[in-house]
Amino acid sequence: MFYFIIDILGTIAFAISGVLVAMEKKLDLFGIFIIAFVTAVGGGTLRDVLLGSTPVVWLRDPIYSIIILASVLFAILFINQLKYFRTSLFLFDTIGIGLYTMVGIEKGLSADLLPMMCIALGTITASFGGVIRDILCNEIPVIFRKEIYATACIIGGLSYFLIRLLPFDATFAYVAAILVIIGIRLLAVKFHIALPNIYRSDKTE
Amino acid sequence: MFYFIIDILGTIAFAISGVLVAMEKKLDLFGIFIIAFVTAVGGGTLRDVLLGSTPVVWLRDPIYSIIILASVLFAILFINQLKYFRTSLFLFDTIGIGLYTMVGIEKGLSADLLPMMCIALGTITASFGGVIRDILCNEIPVIFRKEIYATACIIGGLSYFLIRLLPFDATFAYVAAILVIIGIRLLAVKFHIALPNIYRSDKTE
Amino acid sequence: MFYFIIDILGTIAFAISGVLVAMEKKLDLFGIFIIAFVTAVGGGTLRDVLLGSTPVVWLRDPIYSIIILASVLFAILFINQLKYFRTSLFLFDTIGIGLYTMVGIEKGLSADLLPMMCIALGTITASFGGVIRDILCNEIPVIFRKEIYATACIIGGLSYFLIRLLPFDATFAYVAAILVIIGIRLLAVKFHIALPNIYRSDKTE
Repeated sequence: MFYFIIDILGTIAFAISGVLVAMEKKLDLFGIFIIAFVTAVGGGTLRDVLLGSTPVVWLRDPIYSIIILASVLFAILFINQLKYFRTSLFLFDTIGIGLYTMVGIEKGLSADLLPMMCIALGTITASFGGVIRDILCNEIPVIFRKEIYATACIIGGLSYFLIRLLPFDATFAYVAAILVIIGIRLLAVKFHIALPNIYRSDKTE
Repeated sequence: MFYFIIDILGTIAFAISGVLVAMEKKLDLFGIFIIAFVTAVGGGTLRDVLLGSTPVVWLRDPIYSIIILASVLFAILFINQLKYFRTSLFLFDTIGIGLYTMVGIEKGLSADLLPMMCIALGTITASFGGVIRDILCNEIPVIFRKEIYATACIIGGLSYFLIRLLPFDATFAYVAAILVIIGIRLLAVKFHIALPNIYRSDKTE
Repeated sequence: MFYFIIDILGTIAFAISGVLVAMEKKLDLFGIFIIAFVTAVGGGTLRDVLLGSTPVVWLRDPIYSIIILASVLFAILFINQLKYFRTSLFLFDTIGIGLYTMVGIEKGLSADLLPMMCIALGTITASFGGVIRDILCNEIPVIFRKEIYATACIIGGLSYFLIRLLPFDATFAYVAAILVIIGIRLLAVKFHIALPNIYRSDKTE
């Protein structure tokens, strides 16, 4: 049940962020829905395809499509109101990556993969919906260029496995890792922290 | 046999439309073949990968590759003649999306999916070859921006399941749904019908 | 063991070539790693997904991720030195496509596919990492536009099956096909050989 609510909340958050990107590109209603859908389930779909866990989950369970459709309609109808909630949407997105990272790690653990690969699957689940969204919108994926985003997922995933080494139960580690991801993302955005710029030296030489 | 002929005709139509897009981008012979191939089988391949129906069908059955190769050679050799057949090619493409939508719905039914998911698979089969083609050619997919295209597939898919509720046999519903898709697409292009423009209000406010 | 060394060398060569493309696009460290990763294992991953050979190999075996991570770190640290080794990097890449083509053909043979489909899988393994890299970097894939690249893989693959018709053993055919691919690529680059230009007639008419 905990897992289920987490999954639905993440789906809503990602779908609405997809709608906003699609509307900036002036896509039509079908295009907006596809971008919202891909942003919401693209990372999990890629994860399931790489794992061979098919039919992919949204084909088997209509709840995702229904939630995304409702989120798209809501976002389009209240688009002018959404503008005043940029902070909320940023929080949705941030909570989303925390939640999805752990969903991906759980799937990796179920498939008996090494922690390193579980973290990779968690990061893919959380951030590759956005990568596919950007490719469909003809942009170089934003997470390859700026901001701490996927890096937060990786550090959060590492935290999960480190905490599991201690005498805490799995749920504690699960929630703590999500909070680590949310915390890193919030700090990174607030203080404009990015990955070390490896190109800076070109200018000073 | 009916299914087989439908599949081959759709493959030819889509491959030739792929050649035309690739040649506009001045791709070389290998690039043209890949774009034709992806346009023709990309939607079905994505459908099979999402379903876990692998090895994907064109790896198991060489007929698709042979048909596409022949279509590409034909299209390149008679490219100057093809120019005079824009209307025919549009019809090929339109029949193709009708046919492929139903192929995708059939696959969804075989996998015991809900009607909603069968329609999604039909739409993916019919229109995502073109999406992958546009991504490979570095364009925002045209079906996300203009024209009734995927929407015709969705309405045709809905028609199929509605007709099946009536006392008609499956083949009747199959053919009727294809005709619905072809009809909507023809009407939409003839009368320049697009999805409702949700951006218009931005200008009038 | 022979197969294993081949695979590792190809992975290193492709990862480093991915780093160079990513750095030209000024991606951040995460972006560079993903582009290197995708260039190195993208072709094989696409092959495995199309075959249904999942979980894909790099999820099951951490050696690929470790090799790619080490290659990325090496390439970034010694980037100024790498500039003096353009010829070596070109050779790495060329040996890589030879090796990967045969890896793909082997996988196709294991899945009892026709020679034609094995050659397709070999070409995908060797060249579609680069295709995915270019799409992620928002470019039309370079192998669709210029240079003999995939064509060398196809001819090499054909050579393998032709040599197998003769009374030579499989290892001889395997190595010979790799040398054919490397030879064609080297000759094509040295003498600026491209696929026949089907657009030339447009200018002379």
